[in-house]
Amino acid sequence: VTETAEWLTFANELADSVKPIVLSYFRRRLSIEHKLDGSPVTEADRAIETKIRNAISQRYPAHGVFGEEYGRTEGASRYTWVIDPIDGTKSFITGVPLFGTLIALLDSDRPILGVIDIPALGERWVASAGEITRFNDIECRSSDCIRLRDAALYATSVDMFEGDDRKRFEAVSRAANMRRFSGDCYAYGLLAAGFIDLVVEADLQPYDFLALVPVVEGAGGVITDWAGNPLGIESDGRVIAAATPALHAEVVSMLARNSHQCAR
Amino acid sequence: VTETAEWLTFANELADSVKPIVLSYFRRRLSIEHKLDGSPVTEADRAIETKIRNAISQRYPAHGVFGEEYGRTEGASRYTWVIDPIDGTKSFITGVPLFGTLIALLDSDRPILGVIDIPALGERWVASAGEITRFNDIECRSSDCIRLRDAALYATSVDMFEGDDRKRFEAVSRAANMRRFSGDCYAYGLLAAGFIDLVVEADLQPYDFLALVPVVEGAGGVITDWAGNPLGIESDGRVIAAATPALHAEVVSMLARNSHQCAR
Repeated sequence: VTETAEWLTFANELADSVKPIVLSYFRRRLSIEHKLDGSPVTEADRAIETKIRNAISQRYPAHGVFGEEYGRTEGASRYTWVIDPIDGTKSFITGVPLFGTLIALLDSDRPILGVIDIPALGERWVASAGEITRFNDIECRSSDCIRLRDAALYATSVDMFEGDDRKRFEAVSRAANMRRFSGDCYAYGLLAAGFIDLVVEADLQPYDFLALVPVVEGAGGVITDWAGNPLGIESDGRVIAAATPALHAEVVSMLARNSHQCAR
Repeated sequence: VTETAEWLTFANELADSVKPIVLSYFRRRLSIEHKLDGSPVTEADRAIETKIRNAISQRYPAHGVFGEEYGRTEGASRYTWVIDPIDGTKSFITGVPLFGTLIALLDSDRPILGVIDIPALGERWVASAGEITRFNDIECRSSDCIRLRDAALYATSVDMFEGDDRKRFEAVSRAANMRRFSGDCYAYGLLAAGFIDLVVEADLQPYDFLALVPVVEGAGGVITDWAGNPLGIESDGRVIAAATPALHAEVVSMLARNSHQCAR
């Protein structure tokens, strides 16, 4: 068993172990002060991240951990686990089953393993660098869409784009065949499985997108920031995921043409 | 067994009978010309509606039928079944499991029975006039939210609002505690189950909203057009559903204040 295979098994075990916790909080009445907070922090998030952190520090004491709730703990090695206990909190608190638990493993700043687990649907995407992404244990591939005008585009919400980013998103999304809102991590899973072709988002945190990188790349897609740079912990939170390199290049080029800096 | 109970059993049987058809088309590669059409018409829609129409004409030959695909067939009685085989076609064609089959029964123009079936999730809302709505066979109630500033609001997409409607929607949705896009019929089910508080939409067809009326009302909510009028086949396609009468009144009043006609 290679080290990577061992990490992958461990990541699956992590997702399995927190699934009952996530589901025990789903559609339960949350306390009023958290229920509709702009950035809701629930007991669920904390319970899940604590369980995952404990499991990691027991199994891989030299690895670092970076999680949404409890921040970053440096490790002695170059490996860091990046955790989002519940991605899609707004879906979670409104009873929509499209939220997920995200688990990534970084080798220095490069994501080498990613899990998107959708506990309420029993769906899971698993990927490690150099291997084909698996969706519910079956290898999956992104679509062969190479032109924006043919692409089905998802973004979690128009509300994630501010100012100039909004204009750039409007230009791209209006040129797509179809645009649709909702998604969070689920949209990237849909892309890896070949159901949609493009995701363009902004205002994301590292724990929102690092697990998505191996999933999208392992399915044949391309995922970068809006300038076409690889995603890492220091990325600015703007993300493009595209089914093919050609589609990705078209969107990066269009975002650049529509940026305020270029227009001046 | 009352007539209403018999109709309800029949409506459940209809939903059961088409569920395997819907699921056999879900996440299957659809033919290219339909895949991303603006108003996608799939083999699935037609197969489902045909099956439902045949079952109705056999069981209730005097009842009319009005469906998305094959239009309106008048009946000899005052009862009309209204069918949307797949509500949320964009979800359906992009692999998102939040689409539903909608079945309503009208007594003249008044919806007296409604079913929202979400086949890919195994979830169903069932309602008939005068009874409490059932979600997965358990009675459900809308939330006790009485103020827009506390409300979680859903709409399927910002793209459903044109011109003046867009401004009116922006005014209302910006005043809500939270706004979120996606949903189709699922949003009304979430409202009936108490998970969200408000849905404001436009550009809907009668088969999109008539089944929702008994579901929302039977859970204690209020559902009308934007002017506060009851929904019927001739409604203009603008819909508000609110968890409580107070919340409904606040939104109707705000939509009226922000309408172009009033502003002049």
